[in-house]
Amino acid sequence: MMPFTHRLETLYASMKKVGIDTLTLNPGPNLAYLTGLHFHLSERPTLGLFTPGKKPALILPALETNKVASNSLEMETFPFGDNPADWNQAYARAAKNQGLEHKKIGVEPVRLRVLELRFLEEAAPGAEIVSADEVLSSLRICKEPGEIQNMRQAVTIAQNALNATLPLIKIGMTERQLASELTLQLMRAGSDGELPFQPIVAGGPNSANPHAVPTNRKFQPGDLVVIDWGASYQDYFSDLTRTFAIAEISTDLAEVVQVVAQANAAGRAAGKPGIEAGQVDQVTRKVIEDAGLGEYFIHRTGHGLGMESHEAPYIYGENSFLLSQGMAYTIEPGIYIPGQGGVRIEDDVVVTRSGSESLSNLIRELIVVG
Amino acid sequence: MMPFTHRLETLYASMKKVGIDTLTLNPGPNLAYLTGLHFHLSERPTLGLFTPGKKPALILPALETNKVASNSLEMETFPFGDNPADWNQAYARAAKNQGLEHKKIGVEPVRLRVLELRFLEEAAPGAEIVSADEVLSSLRICKEPGEIQNMRQAVTIAQNALNATLPLIKIGMTERQLASELTLQLMRAGSDGELPFQPIVAGGPNSANPHAVPTNRKFQPGDLVVIDWGASYQDYFSDLTRTFAIAEISTDLAEVVQVVAQANAAGRAAGKPGIEAGQVDQVTRKVIEDAGLGEYFIHRTGHGLGMESHEAPYIYGENSFLLSQGMAYTIEPGIYIPGQGGVRIEDDVVVTRSGSESLSNLIRELIVVG
Repeated sequence: MMPFTHRLETLYASMKKVGIDTLTLNPGPNLAYLTGLHFHLSERPTLGLFTPGKKPALILPALETNKVASNSLEMETFPFGDNPADWNQAYARAAKNQGLEHKKIGVEPVRLRVLELRFLEEAAPGAEIVSADEVLSSLRICKEPGEIQNMRQAVTIAQNALNATLPLIKIGMTERQLASELTLQLMRAGSDGELPFQPIVAGGPNSANPHAVPTNRKFQPGDLVVIDWGASYQDYFSDLTRTFAIAEISTDLAEVVQVVAQANAAGRAAGKPGIEAGQVDQVTRKVIEDAGLGEYFIHRTGHGLGMESHEAPYIYGENSFLLSQGMAYTIEPGIYIPGQGGVRIEDDVVVTRSGSESLSNLIRELIVVG
Repeated sequence: MMPFTHRLETLYASMKKVGIDTLTLNPGPNLAYLTGLHFHLSERPTLGLFTPGKKPALILPALETNKVASNSLEMETFPFGDNPADWNQAYARAAKNQGLEHKKIGVEPVRLRVLELRFLEEAAPGAEIVSADEVLSSLRICKEPGEIQNMRQAVTIAQNALNATLPLIKIGMTERQLASELTLQLMRAGSDGELPFQPIVAGGPNSANPHAVPTNRKFQPGDLVVIDWGASYQDYFSDLTRTFAIAEISTDLAEVVQVVAQANAAGRAAGKPGIEAGQVDQVTRKVIEDAGLGEYFIHRTGHGLGMESHEAPYIYGENSFLLSQGMAYTIEPGIYIPGQGGVRIEDDVVVTRSGSESLSNLIRELIVVG
């Protein structure tokens, strides 16, 4: 599969529409998507440059030029050495090659750092540096069938890893121990090494924190345990959450689990081409509000998913962005009761020709473990 | 251990010297070092603000405020919601609280993104935004005994993981399979989930690329295999490399391994308080140059190591920065012969009162596996 030429054509057409002359990209998913090349984001200011009508260019550490030489997409390279005092020269040569002076340069605000920005500003006097968000957020948003296939595989790996981990949970095990075991099982199930994020395992009162980091707290009877994890497969991610009970939990908490499961089902069913992303949030949120628990659903319903663990489209109430076939996002309603515990159930959904499909199908009913 | 007050005092003294009024920090090691708080770098513009005489402040997603409330260091919080259109308001409130207008604001060029920069510029009219590199590169550079203890543990975990992996290497195994197995063994040996980097496994001609990404190439008799890996322990990293031979390799390549081992030994012995970082590079490089192979050592000798896998001090020839007790860095000479193969041997070294000590002690002689 050699999709780079087609992807570059799509990019250039989209740049033309908003008047961006050159797009710059740090190491990251967009650069990998357009070139097939993977670099680490490091203290070195590696940067890709894309100008319609010119060969794409890379400013990069000299020791990485081999990687480009053996790649299928032809690119100009502007290598730099280990002495930071010389780095601006590589930027100057690249700017000249791409004709950046007095041009409109698009950057990726969530990735481009002050490090590269200052080099760019120095190398391209008179250039206007603007956000290329509009171009970039549409670039990868509709997944090709091959991309969805990779996401499906990332979901399968994540589900298999959790199934292998569940029998090991017991009272007295710590959050960190469970997170470690799950990471190991993700590798064994075939995940690539670079996970989309480290698994979140949060038990008892900690589960009331949606972004908890695993601690040494031990599981106790009556705990809710939120597990939020994902796998990586050939550059594509999955991102799932399930909530379990340790031994017996209170009737109140069991009801909360029911409400979240209903909201999750409503959210999974809501997406289809032509509706606003915000509607998916509203439909999901309404279930929780109708149960009188709206104040405890303290985050958006979900976020786009693909080569990044968070990407467009974002599923929040005010988002008027229109969904189309091939868009992929999470549905992850949650209820968090401070001091008591939290519940979140998260699936990965793809918009189809006439509706939406959940890639994940792990059981969503309350499972009692330990 | 409650080192935050002391660390903040050191920071403020260093800011005063260079005239920075407020330091801003994204999620990352410096923020964790100063506050004990861990956040993910995401599409949300989380930012810490440090102004002498004021309580430290955090601009952060509303759903993360719990984390701050339960932390030992008291901080002001400026939460924002899920709608990006409202994020500038949180920045405005924080800027007012910290008095940023017309002040000198220090930023971290390798971490601060255009995303946060633009919000800062809007919230603090007339402020001068400058690099705080001078302040930051010294902040964590001399490790406290507790920090060295964590690094020592990260080295032990990495060494144990490799020892558990080596017996599994055999002819016909792929680079990716070996990298996966090593990742699994790192978890089993007690590494925290977030590795400093994904293991590099490069065999045969691929080993001539210092930053190779594992491929599906199978190991063949006569291959050199470079393995570059590290573990993570309580926020601190290790970073090691060893080179192995698959069955019998040529006499020429075996000699190359000898030269690199000698350069590594010279580099490990070179560091002591009061000498320039560049001297460590020169001493190491001279061994390879004297063997007539200087042109194949295409990168610096090493880089600092701690809460980041690459940090100051950087070990390159022109670096006149003076070493002191507690500084930690890698010694990783390499020889890369295009088309044939490469050799790298990397250890983690700490400067002591009168010399330097290698934290790692895995065998450096050529091991034949498979």
